[in-house]
Amino acid sequence: MSEPIDPDLLAATDRLVDERRQRYLDRLRDYVRMPSVSAEDLGVAETGAYIRDVLADGGFDARLLPTAGHPAVLARRDGPPGSPHVVIYGHYDVQPAGDDALWDSPPFAPEVRGGKLFGRGTADNKGQHLAHVIATELLVELTGGLPCTVTFVLDGEEELGSPHLEPALLAVRDQLAADLVLVSDGPMDPTGRHQLVYGLRGVLAFEMSATGAARDLHSGHFGEIAPNPLWTLVHLLASMKDSDGTITIDGVNELVAPMGEAERAAMAALEPDPATVLATIGAPKLAPSPAATLGERSMARPTLTINGLHGGYDGPKIKTVLPHTAVAKCDLRLVDGQDADTVWRLVQEHVRRHAPGVRLTRHGAMHPSRTPMDTPYAAPVAHAVRAVTGREPLHVPVAGGSLPMWVFTRSLGLPALLLPFGNYDEANHAPNENLDLTCFYQGIRISAAVLLALAAEGRVRRSGTGTP
Amino acid sequence: MSEPIDPDLLAATDRLVDERRQRYLDRLRDYVRMPSVSAEDLGVAETGAYIRDVLADGGFDARLLPTAGHPAVLARRDGPPGSPHVVIYGHYDVQPAGDDALWDSPPFAPEVRGGKLFGRGTADNKGQHLAHVIATELLVELTGGLPCTVTFVLDGEEELGSPHLEPALLAVRDQLAADLVLVSDGPMDPTGRHQLVYGLRGVLAFEMSATGAARDLHSGHFGEIAPNPLWTLVHLLASMKDSDGTITIDGVNELVAPMGEAERAAMAALEPDPATVLATIGAPKLAPSPAATLGERSMARPTLTINGLHGGYDGPKIKTVLPHTAVAKCDLRLVDGQDADTVWRLVQEHVRRHAPGVRLTRHGAMHPSRTPMDTPYAAPVAHAVRAVTGREPLHVPVAGGSLPMWVFTRSLGLPALLLPFGNYDEANHAPNENLDLTCFYQGIRISAAVLLALAAEGRVRRSGTGTP
Repeated sequence: MSEPIDPDLLAATDRLVDERRQRYLDRLRDYVRMPSVSAEDLGVAETGAYIRDVLADGGFDARLLPTAGHPAVLARRDGPPGSPHVVIYGHYDVQPAGDDALWDSPPFAPEVRGGKLFGRGTADNKGQHLAHVIATELLVELTGGLPCTVTFVLDGEEELGSPHLEPALLAVRDQLAADLVLVSDGPMDPTGRHQLVYGLRGVLAFEMSATGAARDLHSGHFGEIAPNPLWTLVHLLASMKDSDGTITIDGVNELVAPMGEAERAAMAALEPDPATVLATIGAPKLAPSPAATLGERSMARPTLTINGLHGGYDGPKIKTVLPHTAVAKCDLRLVDGQDADTVWRLVQEHVRRHAPGVRLTRHGAMHPSRTPMDTPYAAPVAHAVRAVTGREPLHVPVAGGSLPMWVFTRSLGLPALLLPFGNYDEANHAPNENLDLTCFYQGIRISAAVLLALAAEGRVRRSGTGTP
Repeated sequence: MSEPIDPDLLAATDRLVDERRQRYLDRLRDYVRMPSVSAEDLGVAETGAYIRDVLADGGFDARLLPTAGHPAVLARRDGPPGSPHVVIYGHYDVQPAGDDALWDSPPFAPEVRGGKLFGRGTADNKGQHLAHVIATELLVELTGGLPCTVTFVLDGEEELGSPHLEPALLAVRDQLAADLVLVSDGPMDPTGRHQLVYGLRGVLAFEMSATGAARDLHSGHFGEIAPNPLWTLVHLLASMKDSDGTITIDGVNELVAPMGEAERAAMAALEPDPATVLATIGAPKLAPSPAATLGERSMARPTLTINGLHGGYDGPKIKTVLPHTAVAKCDLRLVDGQDADTVWRLVQEHVRRHAPGVRLTRHGAMHPSRTPMDTPYAAPVAHAVRAVTGREPLHVPVAGGSLPMWVFTRSLGLPALLLPFGNYDEANHAPNENLDLTCFYQGIRISAAVLLALAAEGRVRRSGTGTP
């Protein structure tokens, strides 16, 4: 067990957060009001400078970290000598707002309705990392400093897939020699429980395009004469995953690193009821799969999804045409061991072997990320959640999502945990994105408790009395 | 050999056709000027009545034959007692004009350019059956009557797939006890040679639609959990035809009636050069097929074409969506022995067995048609073509096309031959449909020669001196 967090300090942060609800809401509103749409290059530079200044005002040594694209913000404030070092990752860029007409209030004119703040970026991710920023300010105010060293890394390109984050962080890796990376992004459990996520699946998105004749032809004249790109893609796709759901791209399954004991136990504890899942998605039955459990389907195995497949006639009734082009878009979800670059090479080889004429385009990739469940800093984080909410967080061995956790775990060799603060219906990436203000205020309190608990764990570990 | 056609009569028809070019062109123009778009119910009744009156004026006992849809025109004029009876099938309905802007002159304001008459229905099929009608008028004018009994059947729904023709003709089958059915529709060979076509492939068009969840889902959350209708269709389609081109729907191949010796020889004589075919369609290679020759691909075997396949994301780059619906549209081309209704039952059973949740919709069907190549009236028809053009027609055992020849061969038990009069670039079903006027005038002369040759063959057969 971790050393208890100082109860007076916890009570003091609670009281201050309660008193300052309006002030913190205003700060979040100011931040959300600044568009920072990386995909549209809208307001990104201004917003990065803004949050850098906020951190500098909070006593951080804050600067813009240049990348080959939009800059990240890098900000460090040291705790007591020998205290743990935690990197808090978030992102200040936001998704495009999409069609304004679908929003009940303008995406960049945040509005409170029913206890939630509506606006693009409220939950994803401004509110979630702002909670951490405010928590550091509170601790400084109450104790004169931070209980441990904190480095913020705020990405300006997360919504683009963080294409330039890895080299930028590798260039400053000596400043990132941390004990733990903590990320708050995405939603909590539908029941409102917090989740502590240890691993993330990776993703590899690609497109396969096939061509036959130079133009569409009459199927009666050329039915088995001209190559049909739809048949080419159908047979190619069928060679990549069989009808029982097993991926059959040579070598891809062999890469999977099996889960450990702790992960399998945690996965089993989370096993959902299939009937409930089916009712939720409105499907008559589950997809075919050789997996024994739903947990295995979503945590232990790679998946191959056809996102879209289009070719030929798309009108009413029939047109006896033989199409001359067709395109399939797919994504592979990758689990631990399945390096995205290695899998990409295997996909290329598979396509070359089975359908040499098909053109393959890679659209984006994210390596999987894994942090062992026995990482020593998981216990204090869970302890902090319990201290603030009264409930143990769910321990999730592997989740989905597209966060660049791999940059920390794979490239920097750091343990990285995900602890989302958002409400389940945050509608990230959708119109009417929102952050429940209860979640926001609770996030501040949890963040403060986490920093205190990590410091306490660090003290225990240094004195050699704790369970590692 | 057939008895030669009276050379003086032939010369006389030639001379009259030459003298009356303008008059016949005007008649065709008048006919094309009348829209008769069965799919849009545009002018069909008026046009049917018009061509009935034309036939009545030519001495035919002509009437509208009611069907469950647009009426056909039935018109008979007897030849000498004991002379052969030939049914000439054509259709007075036309394809929709489509976008007027794609026509160089209005589709129903026919215009001559470069020796061709442009307008919807010029070649498909008004000009082709009008050539036969004019030929009968000429023979009556020159000889006082027809050399054999002629019954015109002019369909008002061919462009809809002749859905009501069979019961309508069965109801008057005693009036259709003919020796031969002759159809002129479609184009000649690209080199301008006439083709005598003995069999037509059938077609069965259908749609397969699959559903997964109630809405599109995130592939990261539900990748191997929610059923993906695109995977369902990919695996279903792959179970219907394998990657070497063999149709694998149980029972479908077993129905194929093998070609006879004469048909195989005729097919071999027509074998095209693969390199020329590839150059024409602009494809790098042929479709996979277990067939040994191009002739087999287009004449001897059924084909299964995916006309269109659509589901999921269709925008740029990638969207990690798991679609909830997908639709495939297909057509099967059927060869002799493959009754369309039997094949439809086999397709239904196959889908039920391999993908029970997939909804199957039949969009249209045409049985295959076959007339033995040794049918005794093929020789005089070929003889007539030689007499007029100086060249032997190509003898084509099986062609594509969607004519209801099966109503005559399968339902009425009559031999039926197809002898197209149209130029290869007639652009039927497309903008700027046209009929080369040389083809039109030559069609009149060939038709007259055919009727004379059939009568001569009938006399030979009756006197027992001919080769049957």
